[in-house]
Amino acid sequence: MGIITLTTDFGTNDWFVGTMKGVILRISPTAQIVDITHNIPFADIRAAAFSLLSSYHYFPAGTVNVVVVDPGVGSIRRPVAVKTQNYFFVAPDNGVLSYALEREKIIEIREIANPEYHLKPLGNTFHGRDIFAPVSAHLSNGIAVEKLGPKLNDIVRLAPIEHHKKGKTIEGSIVYIDRFGNAITSIPFGDPDEFLEKKIYIRGKQIAPVLRCYADVKKGEPVAVPGSTGFMEIAVREASAHRKFKLKVGMKVIIK
Amino acid sequence: MGIITLTTDFGTNDWFVGTMKGVILRISPTAQIVDITHNIPFADIRAAAFSLLSSYHYFPAGTVNVVVVDPGVGSIRRPVAVKTQNYFFVAPDNGVLSYALEREKIIEIREIANPEYHLKPLGNTFHGRDIFAPVSAHLSNGIAVEKLGPKLNDIVRLAPIEHHKKGKTIEGSIVYIDRFGNAITSIPFGDPDEFLEKKIYIRGKQIAPVLRCYADVKKGEPVAVPGSTGFMEIAVREASAHRKFKLKVGMKVIIK
Amino acid sequence: MGIITLTTDFGTNDWFVGTMKGVILRISPTAQIVDITHNIPFADIRAAAFSLLSSYHYFPAGTVNVVVVDPGVGSIRRPVAVKTQNYFFVAPDNGVLSYALEREKIIEIREIANPEYHLKPLGNTFHGRDIFAPVSAHLSNGIAVEKLGPKLNDIVRLAPIEHHKKGKTIEGSIVYIDRFGNAITSIPFGDPDEFLEKKIYIRGKQIAPVLRCYADVKKGEPVAVPGSTGFMEIAVREASAHRKFKLKVGMKVIIK
Repeated sequence: MGIITLTTDFGTNDWFVGTMKGVILRISPTAQIVDITHNIPFADIRAAAFSLLSSYHYFPAGTVNVVVVDPGVGSIRRPVAVKTQNYFFVAPDNGVLSYALEREKIIEIREIANPEYHLKPLGNTFHGRDIFAPVSAHLSNGIAVEKLGPKLNDIVRLAPIEHHKKGKTIEGSIVYIDRFGNAITSIPFGDPDEFLEKKIYIRGKQIAPVLRCYADVKKGEPVAVPGSTGFMEIAVREASAHRKFKLKVGMKVIIK
Repeated sequence: MGIITLTTDFGTNDWFVGTMKGVILRISPTAQIVDITHNIPFADIRAAAFSLLSSYHYFPAGTVNVVVVDPGVGSIRRPVAVKTQNYFFVAPDNGVLSYALEREKIIEIREIANPEYHLKPLGNTFHGRDIFAPVSAHLSNGIAVEKLGPKLNDIVRLAPIEHHKKGKTIEGSIVYIDRFGNAITSIPFGDPDEFLEKKIYIRGKQIAPVLRCYADVKKGEPVAVPGSTGFMEIAVREASAHRKFKLKVGMKVIIK
Repeated sequence: MGIITLTTDFGTNDWFVGTMKGVILRISPTAQIVDITHNIPFADIRAAAFSLLSSYHYFPAGTVNVVVVDPGVGSIRRPVAVKTQNYFFVAPDNGVLSYALEREKIIEIREIANPEYHLKPLGNTFHGRDIFAPVSAHLSNGIAVEKLGPKLNDIVRLAPIEHHKKGKTIEGSIVYIDRFGNAITSIPFGDPDEFLEKKIYIRGKQIAPVLRCYADVKKGEPVAVPGSTGFMEIAVREASAHRKFKLKVGMKVIIK
């Protein structure tokens, strides 16, 4: 009855995700498999890392989180399994785990090298099915992470999600744009009330006041709010901030 | 082992639906969660209401139906939980439940106000995760709906799905256009055979005969049939009636 | 706790798949339902057949595989249930099962005619919900396939997936293009090493060398690799072979 989450860039048009689930259920027939998303933009490791960061900690302790965004499949990048105080993570070692693992207490990192836990025959194009699915099912069944392969000292790390304070000014950047066109920034909020007197700026222009919720402005008007991920976000009520302001991941953002 | 259905406009590109499932499974580890759809057009309360109407009654008694199409999130619209003779419904009180509840015997309506059943900290932008998911899980676990908050006398109601009979003429309108481009009308059929001699008209023009099934006409030809939702629908065999006739929700339809 | 897989062209915008799951869970409350895909192109029987072929055998023995791509719904095409040595298959008899059944040992083919296992009232537009869902749940519950209706001698067969060897030249065609723009051919590989000296040709032009994995070429360069389905496939590293070479299903392919 363990839970396994899946985050991939496989899309949902083909049978790829379905076959991963078949492989999991053959090994762990009572696993509860939860899709986080399969629509990570192709090979977008940062988007996958941010999606994992925003979701994994809502799941019960013991959940196995699988992330397969894997442009280097079949090459020398290593598949890894990580045990933290509360969770397991299974992914190619290309940075997709790094945002989540900054927040977790790591117990053990192992390269997935033991062929006993791979599907046979092992191909070179679909390790989601051939490596990550069976390993997640075995971990969910309770095998020791140590059995998977040699110990590693660390995983590949992406540049962290950063912000800087200079007096009353906070500088950050856009890290993710969601389906509603809301732009999530790298600026965390502890006490949301601290931000309520401030405004948000992009390219030197003030674009929105910081308020409590989308409905604090009229339809079609911009607003910055404490978002659901713990970061400040830029929105336009019932419309797309992404389109209105031509926002892109990586753009600098200032709140002051 | 209770069942919880989810109908939202969250899309499937981000982690939103996945985190709702994590929250549910932490509270109700054996819940069976079923996606109705997450692709309700953004903020389209009528489409959500019709999707719920067309799906909830196929589920076993006791199922908890969650609908989150919530343009007013964080503002004064109330979150509600409704117990009917056979089901539970959890949603923002903005009309999304009204079509389904016209057909159900309501036992109890409660505002979801008791913070004990909210996720903490409670944000202002994602009540799907912070309010509706945990409440659905608690209801699935068997807590009394009365515990959620104060009693309400009614929910917000949309204008009902209507049709009018004048002799042998029946007037209605288009209420939903599906993925195949079929246009579902507001005209119900009891005995489908009663309609078999008739034709369907839009903007004064006869556009199709009423027949039994799509395959009763040739490829590319229009037909009106008794649809799977209990309403008459307009189709074009192996093509899109929506595109062929430029149909839109709200257009008047006559069968005679 | 039986597993039921679903492969359809219903899309995920409407409530169609959700209602099928409701019907299944009313009959078989502990069924584990797995989506293969609901985005088969509308009425594309070959794509559905290939998706089933590529997925079903990863599931545990006893799994019930439901395929609903059914342009003839409501007409005279027969609904069928097939029991093989390891699996069950439920579908309209229009060829969607034929690729998978070429590889399975068939035990029994039955027309689904017994109204006892249909939803009531039975409509003419949505047999996924009214026939295939309830039948799959009853099979998952263990009813004998013989109870569903009269014995049939065979199912409708599509032209098989073919390739031809002439000396060191192998001729085949493109059978499927996936979400990444990779083109899967009809040319199977037994020992992938046998192909490593060869090149792949389309319209008389050499378009790529055969190598081991996508990462054996530079970004943006074409490559042919032994794919995850057991067939040779044409890819462009971190891009779309489909777009680069304007590939289409049915195009002739030569490896030599």
